[in-house]
Amino acid sequence: MASSSSSSDQSPATAIAKAAKSAFEASQLIPSSERVKALHEIKQELENAKEEILEANRKDLSAAQVEVDAGRMSSSLLKRLDLNKGDKWDSMLQGVLDVANLPDPTGIVTYATELDDDLELYRVSCPIGVLLVIFEARPEVVVNIAALAIKSGNAAILKGGKESNETAQLLSKAIQTALSKTSIPSTYIQAIQTRAEVSALLELDQYIDLVIPRGSNSLVRTIQNSTRIPVMGHADGLCAVYLDESADLQKAIRVVVDSKIDYPAACNAAETLIVHRSLVRTIWPEVAKALLDKQVQLLCDPETRSALSNLSPSSYQLAALVHPSTPSSYHTEHLALTISVLTVSSLQEAISHINAHSSHHTDSIVTESEASASAFCRGVDSSGTFVNASTRFADGFRYGFGTEVGISTGRIHARGPVGLEGLVIYKYMLRSKSDKGHIVGEFGSGQGKKQYKHAPIHTSSVPF
Amino acid sequence: MASSSSSSDQSPATAIAKAAKSAFEASQLIPSSERVKALHEIKQELENAKEEILEANRKDLSAAQVEVDAGRMSSSLLKRLDLNKGDKWDSMLQGVLDVANLPDPTGIVTYATELDDDLELYRVSCPIGVLLVIFEARPEVVVNIAALAIKSGNAAILKGGKESNETAQLLSKAIQTALSKTSIPSTYIQAIQTRAEVSALLELDQYIDLVIPRGSNSLVRTIQNSTRIPVMGHADGLCAVYLDESADLQKAIRVVVDSKIDYPAACNAAETLIVHRSLVRTIWPEVAKALLDKQVQLLCDPETRSALSNLSPSSYQLAALVHPSTPSSYHTEHLALTISVLTVSSLQEAISHINAHSSHHTDSIVTESEASASAFCRGVDSSGTFVNASTRFADGFRYGFGTEVGISTGRIHARGPVGLEGLVIYKYMLRSKSDKGHIVGEFGSGQGKKQYKHAPIHTSSVPF
Repeated sequence: MASSSSSSDQSPATAIAKAAKSAFEASQLIPSSERVKALHEIKQELENAKEEILEANRKDLSAAQVEVDAGRMSSSLLKRLDLNKGDKWDSMLQGVLDVANLPDPTGIVTYATELDDDLELYRVSCPIGVLLVIFEARPEVVVNIAALAIKSGNAAILKGGKESNETAQLLSKAIQTALSKTSIPSTYIQAIQTRAEVSALLELDQYIDLVIPRGSNSLVRTIQNSTRIPVMGHADGLCAVYLDESADLQKAIRVVVDSKIDYPAACNAAETLIVHRSLVRTIWPEVAKALLDKQVQLLCDPETRSALSNLSPSSYQLAALVHPSTPSSYHTEHLALTISVLTVSSLQEAISHINAHSSHHTDSIVTESEASASAFCRGVDSSGTFVNASTRFADGFRYGFGTEVGISTGRIHARGPVGLEGLVIYKYMLRSKSDKGHIVGEFGSGQGKKQYKHAPIHTSSVPF
Repeated sequence: MASSSSSSDQSPATAIAKAAKSAFEASQLIPSSERVKALHEIKQELENAKEEILEANRKDLSAAQVEVDAGRMSSSLLKRLDLNKGDKWDSMLQGVLDVANLPDPTGIVTYATELDDDLELYRVSCPIGVLLVIFEARPEVVVNIAALAIKSGNAAILKGGKESNETAQLLSKAIQTALSKTSIPSTYIQAIQTRAEVSALLELDQYIDLVIPRGSNSLVRTIQNSTRIPVMGHADGLCAVYLDESADLQKAIRVVVDSKIDYPAACNAAETLIVHRSLVRTIWPEVAKALLDKQVQLLCDPETRSALSNLSPSSYQLAALVHPSTPSSYHTEHLALTISVLTVSSLQEAISHINAHSSHHTDSIVTESEASASAFCRGVDSSGTFVNASTRFADGFRYGFGTEVGISTGRIHARGPVGLEGLVIYKYMLRSKSDKGHIVGEFGSGQGKKQYKHAPIHTSSVPF
């Protein structure tokens, strides 16, 4: 417990975590309008410090260039570090305003009932507490996550990639300066630099309430293996499109091609195409042609492969892009212009394949049958089950959440694209208005005992 | 992954977990009415097997009696084993019917929006998947948990205390017999006997989606430390009542006494009483007298202790029941007729004490001030914050959930008393009804691109 260690023997991580928890607790008595004010102050402070921040960003970029030249860093990672590229700076600032303008996710009553005359129960949405967010190189994520945490009333400790340390430090300094102009404690948002601090923080479940790793599968699993704190993580995205017996040709081509090529590196891109056997010599070759036209490599089972032998593309192109699949193809998140193709004999076989091989992210059926659509949507155990629509629609902005905290591949608390709602939980407020207060001993089955009333109260906010 | 090990090298735990997952997946295509039918079959089957089950229960009781006689088991544990005591058998059966009659928590649309003409998104409640529930001696919990899992559409693996093994085996045999009379696979509910199986199952996060430990703090923490699977646990219940400056005497006495004595062994009983300094010589001695009348031991700080020196109870009684508190008193879940008492100078100090010492379960303020009530309910970071009401109201039945899965001291997914809602999550179903299907490439900011519409759809069920 907190009291068992004196402040003198605190580790730096403990001091950070305690400061975050205490900032969170203090913030509970501050009106939510102050959090919106803080977001506007942050935008202003970032504008004020723009030159200084971009100068720090140039230092990070130079250091990264040395790594790239030495072959120790990829050039795509370097690109992601650059805060001055295109409209990145402006959209980072606009993002803060967008979050400020979203509806407040806290203080919403989701259940209210009168337990007895003058005894009212309210379930009210509230922040979770202290978030520990661990992410990779892109420095603007510091601002993005800080905005989401502040809007939802959570304190946050942020750890970015070490490549963006100089930039991230100045971004978080600007955020703290902005917070100091409000009544929210400036330790509400803190940045840390080292993995050792992360390891120490993962032990402190008395102060930290949720860990959000944004990065690779291995990052998520490493963290899950090393903490008691709940983890809201995004593991892999192995999405499939299934062409049902009754699939329409045009829908099949459009949905498969978009799911694969719209953004192949995204987690909601399709990695597997499942074809009903009855379509192997009809719709499949047309779909294949459309994919080959976009330079998509096809890893085919024997049936779908042999069906392509008479295709019109040159044999050169077929030889270059069509290859036999292996069992591991169907477990692979290609994240590239590659798709694994499989034949099945039935909808049930497709559903079973997806449940055994997909990452339970998003899977789509192309079908004209209502019965198949319904069975697919219920039978496929994924966070998104789609009908005649691209898997790429699985996204918080597209779903209408206004912003995206991440995509959760977990199955509790939040699943699929997560908006601000994923950063809140609820508490129960119970108020007796009776002259004598309310006690449990007066209720029960004996003589003279009261019964619970459970009369719904229709309200969206707590009246006290 | 599943495919990487052949069935021949499967451990028994892996076979159990795979069977549970596959039963869960199969159940997704079975109408929820079948789950209600299963509950009625279970009640019938338990009635049929009553004599056999009670005979097994007598064996468990005899074996336990040997342990009690040898001083290796408490007699209270033995009492909890007895399935034939009072109305326990009948209320176990009635509980199954009660759960059957609750509203279906699955299939409920909680968000629906039209992303574009003919492109509809539905967020629909659905089961979590496979639950691993670990609990202590009481054998009727097998039936209770099985009913909750079936009603909410989750498969479950159950591990009870070894003291009730004979009984639990026959209870779960009756459940499986009942399931075999429905289209739900009989491996939907499985019972396991050994801790080794639990350890092996805790490794299998690809099959098991949620662990629910119902027992001691140390059980919950041990499990949290040894698995990547999310844990919905109930740790301790260290609840406080705060007597605010404006507290009413009668409300103070009633709320404090009920919170302490209504059921001292419960997690929602009060363990700490916090008294505003201005009440130490007015209301506090009256409250103390009421507690002493009920034989409650008071662990007092110097101020509250010295205020009792002129009390009317005999000095003998004061000496026996009033003792100085120590710092650890305020971290102790007494679970007995004992309460720790502390003086504070302000509401803020009370809130800080509770946030630092309570288990964030349920805390209550006695006050006549709206401002204090509001600040306490927001500032105290607990799952229940009450005004002029006993902490003992924190309970799923009293809250109106019809049943209680448990009380969660976690802060994600479900918090406080958990009803069937705590056993569901949601998935997103997206359907294009357009002639061409829907692709993401047609949306965006460029010329001729479509914009997302996000028009709310008002419905409580999915139309396909």
